[in-house]
Amino acid sequence: MSLLLQTGGAAEMNSTIYIVGTGPGKLEKMTLEAHQILQQCDVIVGYQVYIELLKPHFADKEFASTPMTREVERCRLCFDYALKGRKTALVCSGDAGVYGMASLMFELKQSNEQYAGTELCVVAGVTAANSGASLIGAPLNHDYCVISLSDRLTPWEIIEKRLVCAIQGDFAVALYNPSSHTRKGYLKKACEIMLKAGASPERCCGYVENIGRENTVVCVCTLAELMQKEVNMFTTVFIGNSQSFIYENKLITKRGYSI
Amino acid sequence: MSLLLQTGGAAEMNSTIYIVGTGPGKLEKMTLEAHQILQQCDVIVGYQVYIELLKPHFADKEFASTPMTREVERCRLCFDYALKGRKTALVCSGDAGVYGMASLMFELKQSNEQYAGTELCVVAGVTAANSGASLIGAPLNHDYCVISLSDRLTPWEIIEKRLVCAIQGDFAVALYNPSSHTRKGYLKKACEIMLKAGASPERCCGYVENIGRENTVVCVCTLAELMQKEVNMFTTVFIGNSQSFIYENKLITKRGYSI
Repeated sequence: MSLLLQTGGAAEMNSTIYIVGTGPGKLEKMTLEAHQILQQCDVIVGYQVYIELLKPHFADKEFASTPMTREVERCRLCFDYALKGRKTALVCSGDAGVYGMASLMFELKQSNEQYAGTELCVVAGVTAANSGASLIGAPLNHDYCVISLSDRLTPWEIIEKRLVCAIQGDFAVALYNPSSHTRKGYLKKACEIMLKAGASPERCCGYVENIGRENTVVCVCTLAELMQKEVNMFTTVFIGNSQSFIYENKLITKRGYSI
Repeated sequence: MSLLLQTGGAAEMNSTIYIVGTGPGKLEKMTLEAHQILQQCDVIVGYQVYIELLKPHFADKEFASTPMTREVERCRLCFDYALKGRKTALVCSGDAGVYGMASLMFELKQSNEQYAGTELCVVAGVTAANSGASLIGAPLNHDYCVISLSDRLTPWEIIEKRLVCAIQGDFAVALYNPSSHTRKGYLKKACEIMLKAGASPERCCGYVENIGRENTVVCVCTLAELMQKEVNMFTTVFIGNSQSFIYENKLITKRGYSI
């Protein structure tokens, strides 16, 4: 199978840095294109946790990583490899363009003349909103919002405003980064904001832990129940819209067909 | 490569209907899992346009389709095949759970006792918001909304309210179904609503036609310019948030890193 060369997707890799979304974790959740690009590259750069998931499948590659909060350094590493002529892929879990490294790579290229000779190619993957949705039913089957509760890079007032607007617009919602060691209680705070913005305590909700990895946990509940849940940082939370319902432990948001 | 049997993803297909997101079009944009499920099934059911894209790659399969607006009938076909013991996959372009058939399948199962013996398994794919984003840069690299402009199944007032809330919350936005034969002028109307809701005419925007297929067109522009564009029904439109910018014909929404 040599799909990419047929379609011109990855014919020239030398000065191109591929920013690749690898999906939620397991290899089969990756696109064929992402898989083939990783097979064809020399160096795979990424966050340590995701690099470890990939290593067994790409044993002949060179791997490089930086810890969390060292994303700028990680991206600069990619430019350095590419400028040395190495075929370089920067991997992001989920989709490279959803809270991923794609925008940072463009910003770095724009601000550094020495990176001008590189090309950036973003390769989409399935983001946790959608991979998680498939495991919990169909919670995002109508208009939806994706909001991160992490205030590391975003002022909390902006997050709060977005939660309010999501409820006022009656969107289904996927919440990323609902918790971390330093942000316990953020999910509860978000639920309180949504209740105050008009969501019913009976609003149908749910969450998925460890999407597409070992020990996946899927839970459906009401918004009032969600407020009491302790979730970990590998969790994606779903808030239905006002018409969503739970059926056989699945969270479903209708598209609107008459049956 | 036999990934799914290793991980238990598709061991038993007889009474399970797989609702499979096939990505934007080209085979390599599909996940390995989706590809393997289609290889293992007997019958592939879908909308005619997408079935034609798949046929060359799965020549030994039986195919069945219904036209647009006959989605309920299409879904019932899947239950009929599955109840006859055929290994059945229902394909949806993009992701099966984003304006796809996943929710309708759950609704039909819930309302029909004779479908009780079937299991539904949703297999996520890359939806146009994310596959389109990868082609135009990184427009959804912070909190975002996905809104369909089709009022076939949704009252226009709800769509209008969501457009207003998306701007008030300063989300990046992906617009699906911006046009059709019967809905010319909807994109212009949507732009006017967003301007009125406070978006600047200089807001950075763009669109991608024929994502992941032949003759892909990528265009970046301002919101004022977008209002004058004629786009076709195979187009996904992107509205940046207030901080988005255009660089080398790419639409970028920052995540917030200091560089």
